[in-house]
Amino acid sequence: MKKISCSVTAPEGFLASGIKSGIKDNKLDLGLIFSKVPARAVGVFTKNEIKAAPVEVCQKNLKNGQAQAIIVNSGNANCLCGKKGFNQAVSITKHLSSCLAIRTEDVLIASTGVIGKPFPADKIISALPRLVNKLSRSGALAAAKAIMTTDLFLKQVAVKMKIGAKEVKLGGIAKGSGMIYPNMVSAGDSFGATMLCFLTTDACIEQNALTKSLSDAVDESFNAITVDGDMSTNDTVIILANSLSGNPEIKYRSRNYKIFQSALKYVASYLAKEIVRDGEGASKFIEIEIKGAKSKTDAQKIASRIANSNLVKTAIAGEDPNVGRIAAAAGAAGVRLDVPKLDIYLSGLKIMSAGQIHYQVRTKARRLLQNKKIKILLNLNAGANRASIWTCDLTEGYIKINAKYN
Amino acid sequence: MKKISCSVTAPEGFLASGIKSGIKDNKLDLGLIFSKVPARAVGVFTKNEIKAAPVEVCQKNLKNGQAQAIIVNSGNANCLCGKKGFNQAVSITKHLSSCLAIRTEDVLIASTGVIGKPFPADKIISALPRLVNKLSRSGALAAAKAIMTTDLFLKQVAVKMKIGAKEVKLGGIAKGSGMIYPNMVSAGDSFGATMLCFLTTDACIEQNALTKSLSDAVDESFNAITVDGDMSTNDTVIILANSLSGNPEIKYRSRNYKIFQSALKYVASYLAKEIVRDGEGASKFIEIEIKGAKSKTDAQKIASRIANSNLVKTAIAGEDPNVGRIAAAAGAAGVRLDVPKLDIYLSGLKIMSAGQIHYQVRTKARRLLQNKKIKILLNLNAGANRASIWTCDLTEGYIKINAKYN
Repeated sequence: MKKISCSVTAPEGFLASGIKSGIKDNKLDLGLIFSKVPARAVGVFTKNEIKAAPVEVCQKNLKNGQAQAIIVNSGNANCLCGKKGFNQAVSITKHLSSCLAIRTEDVLIASTGVIGKPFPADKIISALPRLVNKLSRSGALAAAKAIMTTDLFLKQVAVKMKIGAKEVKLGGIAKGSGMIYPNMVSAGDSFGATMLCFLTTDACIEQNALTKSLSDAVDESFNAITVDGDMSTNDTVIILANSLSGNPEIKYRSRNYKIFQSALKYVASYLAKEIVRDGEGASKFIEIEIKGAKSKTDAQKIASRIANSNLVKTAIAGEDPNVGRIAAAAGAAGVRLDVPKLDIYLSGLKIMSAGQIHYQVRTKARRLLQNKKIKILLNLNAGANRASIWTCDLTEGYIKINAKYN
Repeated sequence: MKKISCSVTAPEGFLASGIKSGIKDNKLDLGLIFSKVPARAVGVFTKNEIKAAPVEVCQKNLKNGQAQAIIVNSGNANCLCGKKGFNQAVSITKHLSSCLAIRTEDVLIASTGVIGKPFPADKIISALPRLVNKLSRSGALAAAKAIMTTDLFLKQVAVKMKIGAKEVKLGGIAKGSGMIYPNMVSAGDSFGATMLCFLTTDACIEQNALTKSLSDAVDESFNAITVDGDMSTNDTVIILANSLSGNPEIKYRSRNYKIFQSALKYVASYLAKEIVRDGEGASKFIEIEIKGAKSKTDAQKIASRIANSNLVKTAIAGEDPNVGRIAAAAGAAGVRLDVPKLDIYLSGLKIMSAGQIHYQVRTKARRLLQNKKIKILLNLNAGANRASIWTCDLTEGYIKINAKYN
């Protein structure tokens, strides 16, 4: 596997575009990804009880496991807009399918932005011919920009791998910065922005292998990040696999599956980390790892509680080695802890063991916290299970952004 | 029941004091509450797996249901200081009991401040004679000040009630401003600062009635507040009932029990609300009420999720009627929602119904958010159960305080 340039149009047969449709004021706000041939398609979506209209439309249109186009707007979430919002989303898929001369069920849709604001479907519909006209390989950049909201930078990646004698490519774009605590489909209870991610590949892969591969990759990437602990109504990850590389079909659990899976995991993790790095107001990237847990769920619960602790996140923002806050968050996760066995490390430095904080390493710890990348490791010494979660610190920047978001 | 002046020394036979022991720099940091006679005593404590040493000492000393003194320091939590911290807490109770000429088991202890910092027991022990010497009825004020950490104002209240022919008094002091998400003893799973509260009464009340009364009052007050969702290792509520009013003993579930219970609930709720009002950086007091839930647990889970949503709290700080964030938080609580039935009200204004946000009332909603007191009400229209939680908004002030807390 090798990283290559470009993103969703790196794989054979994919085109993309991004334009200003007028939802936002003079900014790119509408993107399109298109496969020249129908592709196998799988999606995972938010587990929030309140689901945006485009999520419902995708779930319906993905039932046959096939799609050919994904249209995405920023600036409006089309969520809690009643029956009208749903009908508007359907109407957009119909208009787009006729512009593209493809089946309506092969159009997927996603939205991100303010919840509850009347959805400007007319603006989108009248922009469709222009959006389709702009489709090109170089359009991936405009598409990646069009899905940004509070994002400070665009998020894209692509890789190539060998499957049999063929070169297979896999690319993706993503957005997300706030309301980031995804919990999509198969994930556990404790893990859970709007984050959107669209993946394309020219691989030929069995439908069930594609489903399992996406679900596993999401669990270890997007489902393992949090910016603010707020789960969105619009979280969406979709992969389109159009088979145009001509590789022998990838079967579930085969050697080729492992190659594909490791590439997909790399791409998903790369984009998930980019979202955390671009977390609203974030100044630090924090990895929290829990080792030695009795179960993976225990490890996830503790990691999640620490990652969502405002006190831990503000302490790290202030480069203050307040180990007590980390320990207190761990102790509040609803998991039995054998405190005398608990070891805590800060970027490799042991800061707590045997039920006691090592207050004397405070100056060293403070120095380590000056780095942009922080690692918190807890070893519960109670079992053989582990979990990781990626998050960011909590700064005044987050408050500024979110006290006035329209 | 009537509100009266003073606090923990309003009831007969109670004295208090507060002094500077040198834990903090030239600030009151050590308080004492003392009953002239042994009192029936009950406490509730944090459910955090990591418990401060004083919590463990209290739990031990309360086994016989009796106490006569409570010593409290601020500036150091005596938590995660290993076996040494525990021994230091015990040593303080021993020294104090000999100063006061009472039994060691009748001394309770509480601490609040930084976790993991070596505990300055020597400073406290050498200050004990001065602390005891200062005991007086007017010392309640100094005691209330001595337990403050980031608190901007002191929290105290007292009431009197008639039990039989006798006048019974009940008073309390509390502290708490950050790391506030108490979850003590009997509360459900989803509810969870250091908050300390010490209550005194001259009532004569059966031990089991006192236990039940405190537990119920705490569930509807301290266990129903959150500032930042971070549960402390030191949360403590203790009540001493010294029987000196001479009232006929209050029996569980009697008419007099109801009078006492309603007074205790008032005092606990008053102090709990004061903690929220003084939440670190808080500019608004927010009540979240969930009605029409299938179960109380469902209602608590949703209330708690909304109350701990950084996006809801920052929106309210910015006086931005972002209803979508409230709904998204409700939908992420892990409780099934029938979205078309969900009604949301903001300080009496209906802002969502039938699965649709009323975007047109936005200007009115924005005006309502200019008030200092905000009420968010969700009616799930799915059952007959309810829950309330009190919280505050999230401002840049919170970040400033917590990025540099030592």
